[in-house]
Amino acid sequence: MHATRSSGKSANPLRDPRDKRVPEIAGPCSLVIFGVTGDLARKKLLPAIYDLANRGLLPPEFALLGFARRDYAHEDFAAVVKDAVVAHARTPFRDEVWDRLAEGIRFVKGTFDDDDAFDRLAAELKQLDTERGTGGNHAFYLAIPPDTFPVVLRQLERSGLSQSGDDRWRRVVIEKPFGHDLDSAEKLNALVNRVFPEETVFRIDHYLGKETVQNILALRFANQLFEPLWNAHYVDHVQITMAEDIGLGGRAGYYDGIGAARDVIQNHLLQLLAITAMEEPVSFSATELHAEKIKVLSATRLAEPLAETTARGQYAAGWQGSEKVVGLLDEQGFSPESRTETFAAITLEIASRRWAGVPFYLRTGKRLGRRVTEIALVFKRAPHLPFDATMTAELGQNALVIRVQPDEGVTVRFGSKVPGPGMEVRDVNMDFSYGEAFTENSPEAYERLILDVLLGVPSLFPVNAEVELSWKILDPALDYWAAHGAPDPYESGGWGPASADAMVRRTGREWRRP
Amino acid sequence: MHATRSSGKSANPLRDPRDKRVPEIAGPCSLVIFGVTGDLARKKLLPAIYDLANRGLLPPEFALLGFARRDYAHEDFAAVVKDAVVAHARTPFRDEVWDRLAEGIRFVKGTFDDDDAFDRLAAELKQLDTERGTGGNHAFYLAIPPDTFPVVLRQLERSGLSQSGDDRWRRVVIEKPFGHDLDSAEKLNALVNRVFPEETVFRIDHYLGKETVQNILALRFANQLFEPLWNAHYVDHVQITMAEDIGLGGRAGYYDGIGAARDVIQNHLLQLLAITAMEEPVSFSATELHAEKIKVLSATRLAEPLAETTARGQYAAGWQGSEKVVGLLDEQGFSPESRTETFAAITLEIASRRWAGVPFYLRTGKRLGRRVTEIALVFKRAPHLPFDATMTAELGQNALVIRVQPDEGVTVRFGSKVPGPGMEVRDVNMDFSYGEAFTENSPEAYERLILDVLLGVPSLFPVNAEVELSWKILDPALDYWAAHGAPDPYESGGWGPASADAMVRRTGREWRRP
Repeated sequence: MHATRSSGKSANPLRDPRDKRVPEIAGPCSLVIFGVTGDLARKKLLPAIYDLANRGLLPPEFALLGFARRDYAHEDFAAVVKDAVVAHARTPFRDEVWDRLAEGIRFVKGTFDDDDAFDRLAAELKQLDTERGTGGNHAFYLAIPPDTFPVVLRQLERSGLSQSGDDRWRRVVIEKPFGHDLDSAEKLNALVNRVFPEETVFRIDHYLGKETVQNILALRFANQLFEPLWNAHYVDHVQITMAEDIGLGGRAGYYDGIGAARDVIQNHLLQLLAITAMEEPVSFSATELHAEKIKVLSATRLAEPLAETTARGQYAAGWQGSEKVVGLLDEQGFSPESRTETFAAITLEIASRRWAGVPFYLRTGKRLGRRVTEIALVFKRAPHLPFDATMTAELGQNALVIRVQPDEGVTVRFGSKVPGPGMEVRDVNMDFSYGEAFTENSPEAYERLILDVLLGVPSLFPVNAEVELSWKILDPALDYWAAHGAPDPYESGGWGPASADAMVRRTGREWRRP
Repeated sequence: MHATRSSGKSANPLRDPRDKRVPEIAGPCSLVIFGVTGDLARKKLLPAIYDLANRGLLPPEFALLGFARRDYAHEDFAAVVKDAVVAHARTPFRDEVWDRLAEGIRFVKGTFDDDDAFDRLAAELKQLDTERGTGGNHAFYLAIPPDTFPVVLRQLERSGLSQSGDDRWRRVVIEKPFGHDLDSAEKLNALVNRVFPEETVFRIDHYLGKETVQNILALRFANQLFEPLWNAHYVDHVQITMAEDIGLGGRAGYYDGIGAARDVIQNHLLQLLAITAMEEPVSFSATELHAEKIKVLSATRLAEPLAETTARGQYAAGWQGSEKVVGLLDEQGFSPESRTETFAAITLEIASRRWAGVPFYLRTGKRLGRRVTEIALVFKRAPHLPFDATMTAELGQNALVIRVQPDEGVTVRFGSKVPGPGMEVRDVNMDFSYGEAFTENSPEAYERLILDVLLGVPSLFPVNAEVELSWKILDPALDYWAAHGAPDPYESGGWGPASADAMVRRTGREWRRP
């Protein structure tokens, strides 16, 4: 997964460039963050940058620039970064690492429509190229609302900052939402690609930075054990779940009118589906990986009729553990008539020889019983059991579960003889736990992804076509829901509305209670 | 596995006879043990009988008779049984259980050539039929050396004790060795079958009483996950290991001239092979199970040339943990010229569509590094890895390991991504542990097997044909070794002679270090 598309000379003289086990160190560059005073920057981006520095993966020729309206001097901004690092970094704070990083920290004050501010940004970057040796290589991280993309992109174009050259690269990093339907996504992609060519656009889906998600590739393609079972001959259905226990207090501005399907299914869950269901790529180069994901997403569509194959819900009051919580309509900032769904479930079909006839059930929700993300391949029952029925009365279907988070690992559920003089077969679990198996420190998803941006390795970033295909898959459900009233209320702390259970039960299946 | 061939009315009124989960309770009967003062009786048989009683699996109409030369009264023998129970039973001692059991304990004094003694035995059994209600059903357990079988069998015949009837059953239980080659096994079987028809002969291979061995059937045939991989398409080779750390001090009388292959491979390991490699039976009735085991053993033969496909060794001095131990030739009772092997390894081929081309490596030895019995299916490497070679440098072959003892369970070894920004795949283990998964108390192998004798359930007892086929498989190796000098010495505490390593290495494989 480390096929470099930029030349990006490695700064590690001990590293054999053919050895893909040792991480590459980023080359000289600067990273500009727009929206640097927001939550994402403070909790994820700034700490990740420090952690990369601490792991020795940033070069001495590195600079970090913040752009915002605040009236900060460089030192003020450095202090903000330091606070974020101390509060949220995963590696220990070391003065010498911090001091070296801090030397390259700058701040530019301005609003997005202020030409002068962007000219000052350009000048600052140019000076750093000389002072710090960043070599004209700049990444622009748009940690800002999508409605501000047009103006910032225009400014980057106008000031010449978006312009790559033979001896320097320019890249842009954007966060979801990548539009709110196929039409708006196409418009957004056109806007971005007018300024930044597709190969310089890095769309963050932080799920792809997770170790457990990348491990799906290792599981499937580095082993002999699993792939023979990974198809419609043996798999009965697949369940992809992202459950959250938190509610939406304080997030009305972002969430109201968006909902669970746009927020999670369109990106995270469809990406998990693509990696789980795709064919084996020729190699793990970005081109080959993207090609396989595009191929499987092209073959994916909603099962019909949508009244039976989809479900959505909105959390009502209830108990989250020992805490009494309010329903969405009573959360601050939400309209009491809001029809925004906080739970969504869909049934997908994949038109391929490998998966024909195997439903993929995707679900996500807020205020569910437990925070968990998992992919479960549920296998068919054996075609024949040479046991008396009573011996296997408590036997379920075999399952292989990839535990994405928390408690990262893999579980295989199968039937085993219950000890004793009778013959009784009962389900047991076989477990692999990441935390127990490896002493290696697992990098945070943003660390991995920011490093890949700086290295110019696009494998883990969905391309334009993936984003648009995902909307194409989801849009009919969004349209159907928009035309069919309000979502079904469900009790906080449970597992979603009864309609979601009915959705899988009508085919004789059950959701896992993870 | 609980298809009853005797009618044997169940004594449990709550038990639905169609429910195979609940263990059946033995019907009225008596159990006669010859060799009741020996180690096997004291450590295994007598405690197992108590444990069965304690679990409520013996009927009130049960009697236990000891036959030996000692001048015991019934109470003396009962005291001996009690001592054995207190020392070795697995379930807690309860006075009320013991008292009920003790009421049915009898002793008959005599030698095997003493007609009077056997007449007294017959009279005692007849009286118990009336007094205790044992109903004329008798099992005779020959826990005695095989050279005494002829006289005891003759006595049982002469006294009429071997004679089953429409309303009563008679069974005989024999322990290995079942001969020392094909010819002697045929003679022994002919001798036994002259007195006891084959369906009344129960040959004990205590490995078949182990939960983990019976679980192989559940693993393979109650699941969808494993069977598709269980063949030559995916399996590279199979290793069946029974390693012991103990030496042979004090066991010269039994072991010298017998050796590891006759003692372990001919019975335990070939039975494990049969259960691992056989086709799916129509049902778990004894007839069907035996038919499949016979079929696969008929297709099994030694790979050749034997100079390369077999190995044997004899332990020399060394360290077993922190204890310095002597070599076999210095053990008390062994001839200093003994050529008895204490380690044996063979390579088997199975001529079937499922297994053609897949070597089965069997090994067993004394004074090895660790006590462990396991069956390992080692899988082929994936036909193609879309990874750079450096990413998978530390990746071995996938394996599925059935841990027979100790630490009973199943392990799957597979490749997983090492956490970190690079892509490196390394072997990890996924574990299932019997002890952690089940709160159910696992019965000792002898408990299970004695209960099955009393119930008349022959599934877990190898039949005549299996014993003879096993000798037919092994005999060429025994002949070859007899003609080729002494076994190779190996250091105690290691993993056998260099010739055993060479045996697998010549095909590019390695023994597991379990």
